[in-house]
Amino acid sequence: MLFSKMHGLGNDFIVIDARGKEDIDYNLLAKKMCHRHIGVGADGILLVLDSKLADIRMRIINSDGSEAEMCGNGIRCFSKYVFERGIVKKDKFKVETLAGIIEPQLILNDYGLVEKVRVNMGKPSFKRKDIPMQGDPESDAINTSIEVEGKEYKITSLLMGVPHTVLFVDDVEKVDIYTLGPKIEKHEVFPRKTNVNFVQVIDKNNIKVRTWERGAGATFACGTGSCASVIASNLNGFTEKKVNVHLYFGMLEIEWQDDGTVFMTGPAEEVFVGEYLD
Amino acid sequence: MLFSKMHGLGNDFIVIDARGKEDIDYNLLAKKMCHRHIGVGADGILLVLDSKLADIRMRIINSDGSEAEMCGNGIRCFSKYVFERGIVKKDKFKVETLAGIIEPQLILNDYGLVEKVRVNMGKPSFKRKDIPMQGDPESDAINTSIEVEGKEYKITSLLMGVPHTVLFVDDVEKVDIYTLGPKIEKHEVFPRKTNVNFVQVIDKNNIKVRTWERGAGATFACGTGSCASVIASNLNGFTEKKVNVHLYFGMLEIEWQDDGTVFMTGPAEEVFVGEYLD
Repeated sequence: MLFSKMHGLGNDFIVIDARGKEDIDYNLLAKKMCHRHIGVGADGILLVLDSKLADIRMRIINSDGSEAEMCGNGIRCFSKYVFERGIVKKDKFKVETLAGIIEPQLILNDYGLVEKVRVNMGKPSFKRKDIPMQGDPESDAINTSIEVEGKEYKITSLLMGVPHTVLFVDDVEKVDIYTLGPKIEKHEVFPRKTNVNFVQVIDKNNIKVRTWERGAGATFACGTGSCASVIASNLNGFTEKKVNVHLYFGMLEIEWQDDGTVFMTGPAEEVFVGEYLD
Repeated sequence: MLFSKMHGLGNDFIVIDARGKEDIDYNLLAKKMCHRHIGVGADGILLVLDSKLADIRMRIINSDGSEAEMCGNGIRCFSKYVFERGIVKKDKFKVETLAGIIEPQLILNDYGLVEKVRVNMGKPSFKRKDIPMQGDPESDAINTSIEVEGKEYKITSLLMGVPHTVLFVDDVEKVDIYTLGPKIEKHEVFPRKTNVNFVQVIDKNNIKVRTWERGAGATFACGTGSCASVIASNLNGFTEKKVNVHLYFGMLEIEWQDDGTVFMTGPAEEVFVGEYLD
């Protein structure tokens, strides 16, 4: 089994050209290959498949064998792979995913290789019934308060594909994300829990973000969390609508357009190619 | 840079044929390649080098860039690699390491591939001055007591290349290794700290072991810890001198010979081959 190992800002994937190899049990294979000591090691596998609806189809299987609908870091890696292998020959194309058709736009360097990928991340929802969050179903949760163990925190919550909550802090490095993250994630006002983003505003066009992901804990980079953080920063008057989000391994450029659509531009790296000897 | 990814009971290594490529900064390369998200991911790299003293030479660079003297799990992987690549054409050969000459003996399967490797692990020392451990320098520490936060624990300590302490428990799965491990590791009676092995005796020839490694925490498999556990089990009357040690990913066969020498036999697996695209 040939594969490529890639990552988008530390979120790492095994990419497999699965065309003509659809009969393999990829859920089982993902569990084996993603193990970080006795397998190849990754957060998930990305499968390249033919599509009847789009130029190409992507499946994402998590390391636990479950299937994900979409992943912002994953689709950048996927897009780089299918273009640089000549599987798709356009710099803007359509990818069929479980979350619908995604249309990545490639940004090439002088050598014709993919340096960055721009992806439409959809539109946010602000109503509490959509997030979902307790309170008036039709009201929003921009700069509202919640109490955690007797202490009040100012938060902004929204749905950006998944539920997100943003807290502004003076220094993201000094936040005790491992204590406060899970307490907000599982706070009773969020019936389906929430992702938690700690945001440090640097200036009108730059923020630092650390995300506590619902179910996954602290991760290196969260695409939807970066989008939610920029939206919350703008709505609270801290930034403009085009902002660089600084993460542990690099930067995402987020642009919240006037029609509500959010675009995310970020890097993808290929680390090694290999043959799995199972 | 071509490499092979291997593991010995979950302790995993990137193996590189470094012959004729001695001028590379492998300490830096190990730090980059061993990263589990943006590199290949491993506990360390094993370098294959020519030797003037033995059939072949092995260097081990840890994931933090430091160099290790020897590693029982590593040398099994190294031995399988050099034999199956035809670099060494004998099933018993000499390997130059920083801990001296090691002489692995290969156990081949019906296809002529390496199934297990038998390694001389040297002899234990029991004197407290050698371990090192507080108390009469010439006395041993077989079935002695230490106090941890007001509670007394029966232990056996010895030097098996590195300091090891063994505690017998009813069920290794139920031991709170993350709490008790570091407290014994850093106990004041051990001036250079100690590795801590929790041992569950199954019968005269089988034990289960979980090791808390000094500086590394809970690991999947510790070669010297398995040797120390068998020696302590025998000295305390629980087992014979030839014992199967059951670990998370498989088994090590430990044999404590009458002249004091300990032999360890265990598996090595090749998981994938790759080309690092740095």
